[in-house]
Amino acid sequence: MTSNYTPPKVWKHETNGEGKFANINRPISGATHEKELPVGKHPFQLYSLGTPNGVKVTIMFEELLELGIKEAEYDAYLINIMEGDQFSSGFVDINPNSKIPALLDKSGETPVRLFESGSMLLYLAEKFGHFLPKDHSKRTEVLNWLFWQMGSAPYVGGGFGHFYAYAPEKIEYCINRFTMEAKRQLDVLDKTLANRTYIAGEEYSIADMAIWPWYGALVSGSLYEAGDFLDSKSYKNLLRWSELIGNRPAVKRGRIVNRSWGEDNEKLLERHDASDFEGLNLN
Amino acid sequence: MTSNYTPPKVWKHETNGEGKFANINRPISGATHEKELPVGKHPFQLYSLGTPNGVKVTIMFEELLELGIKEAEYDAYLINIMEGDQFSSGFVDINPNSKIPALLDKSGETPVRLFESGSMLLYLAEKFGHFLPKDHSKRTEVLNWLFWQMGSAPYVGGGFGHFYAYAPEKIEYCINRFTMEAKRQLDVLDKTLANRTYIAGEEYSIADMAIWPWYGALVSGSLYEAGDFLDSKSYKNLLRWSELIGNRPAVKRGRIVNRSWGEDNEKLLERHDASDFEGLNLN
Repeated sequence: MTSNYTPPKVWKHETNGEGKFANINRPISGATHEKELPVGKHPFQLYSLGTPNGVKVTIMFEELLELGIKEAEYDAYLINIMEGDQFSSGFVDINPNSKIPALLDKSGETPVRLFESGSMLLYLAEKFGHFLPKDHSKRTEVLNWLFWQMGSAPYVGGGFGHFYAYAPEKIEYCINRFTMEAKRQLDVLDKTLANRTYIAGEEYSIADMAIWPWYGALVSGSLYEAGDFLDSKSYKNLLRWSELIGNRPAVKRGRIVNRSWGEDNEKLLERHDASDFEGLNLN
Repeated sequence: MTSNYTPPKVWKHETNGEGKFANINRPISGATHEKELPVGKHPFQLYSLGTPNGVKVTIMFEELLELGIKEAEYDAYLINIMEGDQFSSGFVDINPNSKIPALLDKSGETPVRLFESGSMLLYLAEKFGHFLPKDHSKRTEVLNWLFWQMGSAPYVGGGFGHFYAYAPEKIEYCINRFTMEAKRQLDVLDKTLANRTYIAGEEYSIADMAIWPWYGALVSGSLYEAGDFLDSKSYKNLLRWSELIGNRPAVKRGRIVNRSWGEDNEKLLERHDASDFEGLNLN
């Protein structure tokens, strides 16, 4: 599979191999089937899945609702990526990139489409005036870290996670390459959090919401079950912060929205009302 | 190297292998040596290299200067990443992530640090009121694509480019995996540009400036010399757009700033004044 390979002059798509997610990876974009998305009664319509990128946004909605901002009410619909829901015409109309999450703001005269979790966090922070400091310098620092997360996590998700947990063969070169980068990123965060309560300073912000679902889960060992492998317990400041964020009531709610795996009382396939969380185990 | 590998319980850093850039990859972060950065006379101090992420920002500065905005004057210093300049204490103070570009805005009372090219583009667009539409819906679409670029290009740079061009061995599984994703991304852009002049609509924006240095170079074959392999000529809308952007005078200047390779008259190691471009071949 890996030895003595000479790439052809022009690449041809022959097989996707046997790795997890192989059946949903394609070399082209666009819709595979015509299907409208469901639409609920709230201003915001979220089409997502409870993976780290999805959880960023449900945490933000729950944080806004925790502040009593009723205009941030949302309907969250499940997108089953293993079934190809992200390739429906309705989904592609919102996100031509066919990745969760996709969001529609229908509070105004014309609905506004959003794709990319970072774009959604910034949009909601600006719309409601929370979790992004007004102070120019502090705001800039939050955005630095928000963009850092967007550009760094692909090396964790598409790199480390894929080759450590999902690829059909354990390829030593790739595991070493992406483990080194994952550990470097954990160390960047750990050193930063040695002198700050939150990622971008003394205020909880959208930078924390973007980073926690990936790096909080990675350092706590719940993502890829790689805690021992990464020697996670050595990142003490990051662990302290991960627990601090994880204990917020809104985070406890947001992290189980659109989750499609695990125990019945620890997931919420769709979220349409605050009462949907009743009876669920949020710890 | 790749067969029958069983990851250890706890990963240990033993060797970085033989790939290009192996000597600058580390599993920890932080400064390796004490060194101040040079500081010039202009409001903005850029510490960078003429790779795609660096070029995004020099294009933005040149576009702002093209509009006659003198407050956007900048000094651009070369960061030689192969020599470890990104690990100096001065650089790490601006960007704890040790990646180019790093930017200091010293126009105000307190200098403001910026890291991540996407953060810089947004910052400069907001500060000077250009290349980011005022209209709410149009602005959101630009930001969607700006964040798309940040989250997608790692699969081109750290994925496709690494395994196709730089890794010490051609690993078929990895080349197939990342080629498929690179082609999917090219197709996302190509389909989008079938109905629009620019990435996010009819206005040239920071989304174009973020995407062109990566995907314009990829589709034109100059990045990784992979044009044939990716069947680039099939992405006709993207090629049309790539040429449109590439012909802008500011883009022709910005793309050679902090370039440390190629012909002497096609690179500008440091940029401190508009006159620095005189006599250079900008085509």
